[in-house]
Amino acid sequence: VERDLRTLEEVREAIATLAVRGAPAIGVAAAMGLVTSLAPHAAEDLGPFRARVKAHARALGAARPTAVNLAWAMRRMVVRAENEAEPRAASGEARELLSALRDEATAILEEDRAMCEAIGRHALPLVPDGARVLTHCNTGALATAGIGTALAAVYLAHAEGRRVRVVACETRPLLQGSRLTAWELAQAHIPVTIIADGAAASLLAAGEVDVVLVGADRVAANGDVANKIGTYALALAAERHRVPFYVCVPWSTIDPATPDGAAIAIEQRPADEIRQVAGVPVSPAAVHALNPAFDVTPGGMITGIVTDRGVHRTPYRFQ
Amino acid sequence: VERDLRTLEEVREAIATLAVRGAPAIGVAAAMGLVTSLAPHAAEDLGPFRARVKAHARALGAARPTAVNLAWAMRRMVVRAENEAEPRAASGEARELLSALRDEATAILEEDRAMCEAIGRHALPLVPDGARVLTHCNTGALATAGIGTALAAVYLAHAEGRRVRVVACETRPLLQGSRLTAWELAQAHIPVTIIADGAAASLLAAGEVDVVLVGADRVAANGDVANKIGTYALALAAERHRVPFYVCVPWSTIDPATPDGAAIAIEQRPADEIRQVAGVPVSPAAVHALNPAFDVTPGGMITGIVTDRGVHRTPYRFQ
Repeated sequence: VERDLRTLEEVREAIATLAVRGAPAIGVAAAMGLVTSLAPHAAEDLGPFRARVKAHARALGAARPTAVNLAWAMRRMVVRAENEAEPRAASGEARELLSALRDEATAILEEDRAMCEAIGRHALPLVPDGARVLTHCNTGALATAGIGTALAAVYLAHAEGRRVRVVACETRPLLQGSRLTAWELAQAHIPVTIIADGAAASLLAAGEVDVVLVGADRVAANGDVANKIGTYALALAAERHRVPFYVCVPWSTIDPATPDGAAIAIEQRPADEIRQVAGVPVSPAAVHALNPAFDVTPGGMITGIVTDRGVHRTPYRFQ
Repeated sequence: VERDLRTLEEVREAIATLAVRGAPAIGVAAAMGLVTSLAPHAAEDLGPFRARVKAHARALGAARPTAVNLAWAMRRMVVRAENEAEPRAASGEARELLSALRDEATAILEEDRAMCEAIGRHALPLVPDGARVLTHCNTGALATAGIGTALAAVYLAHAEGRRVRVVACETRPLLQGSRLTAWELAQAHIPVTIIADGAAASLLAAGEVDVVLVGADRVAANGDVANKIGTYALALAAERHRVPFYVCVPWSTIDPATPDGAAIAIEQRPADEIRQVAGVPVSPAAVHALNPAFDVTPGGMITGIVTDRGVHRTPYRFQ
């Protein structure tokens, strides 16, 4: 579904309801949406317009308080509005500032695109002709402004004419694998097969996977990785069957202030995500459910961590 | 849902549509259903009645051709009909044979109940007071005529007043864990928590599970076990975190003619079980899906195999 968002409220609502998701994509959408929501007010005087920039940025920034990229993108836009020189035109209108903000939003978009490209370029040797890639959750074009993080090398390999096949874990509870990854790879004409999360270990045991590529939500200083629930089980099976296991992230996802995985708080999400699927109840309504959003894979089990700066190897000591 | 099945067609349909499922439960239901479907014909002469027994047994036996217990139970009922002595009453009616068949069906039911009890008794020391049990799929009262296989010890421990808590993997694709295991344990007032299959490894890593108890569809001579897809991933995580991993099965599930897991053919089930949940599409309709029903866990990773004959330990050499 493509949605045309114009007003402040339309953009805010799209972010709040996860119509846009994936941390990098949220930041880009908010910056672009901020500019779009300001456009009808370009004839205002500069003073009131600057106040409006702050108000709109505050409203969009509050749409999802936990998404780091969102707050970061809104702060960056406000700083640009504050630092931009007085307009050369004598009109006192805000048109030039609006134009500068459009440049800033475009820069955020382009930087995100370039980050994806860089990750993909560094990970490209992991996806040779004929490679069978196992992945989890969604880490592609639907999560970023570019070609994704863990899927970036898949897109680049495909663009080079390499034959690459992807097995996507459906990724319960929210099924990002079957809903999003399968959709975007099919759109790109890259062969994709979805499986139940529990089927991954037997595929790895059968030698049907050449490399595991996943993203991450946070990487600790020692290389411990928090990623979508189910990732650790994949790492266990990959290690047992000697299949390389790579984590692909923007450098900004590495958090040197977090010493190790034990220091990462794991978000517990609503029980109904387990008790229901796509809104349909699949268990007794009163049954207790545990729904951790992430698990932690020890750095020692990770063959390599690929960022836009290169491929990092164990022992990891990020600073 | 309780359904009252009387005619041949009602019983056949209940088995064919999986209203009754679980191999032992199917065998018992078919034997009982055979008797019920024969009851209106007890005034027939013995000859036609015997022919009817065979015809009904053939119809019920064909309801699900792959369920071993079903064919076995129908064969047993037909043999009983053939070997039963001529009636002492001179009427020539089939009432006494019908009564004998009712005894046979009751014996099948009682033997299944006793098998469950025996498995539970042997596994009971694995479930001490305060035990936290992780299980997969459904192996309880809804799969057998008694208290189940892997859940038998849980029921016995609870009946003895031990505090026991169960974590049930939801078990995609068909969600037997959240639909069936959660339901029957809640009915029995045994605390149960459902999780996404991918969350099991992190629970084992966190030390929140004391023992893993699962059933099996087939056990090879060397102890390799075929069970519901996802079992192998649990075994990997249990081994890594030194949590005992037990398989609980009727002795009849052990197949000495199968040397090892590699000799077990794995059933591939319809792709729509992955592409849909409870009939709701959750992925692009055309996307390829792989849906193996079972995986194989090597005997060497299994702490013990509990049958109605006792607890068997590695190295397994079943004959």
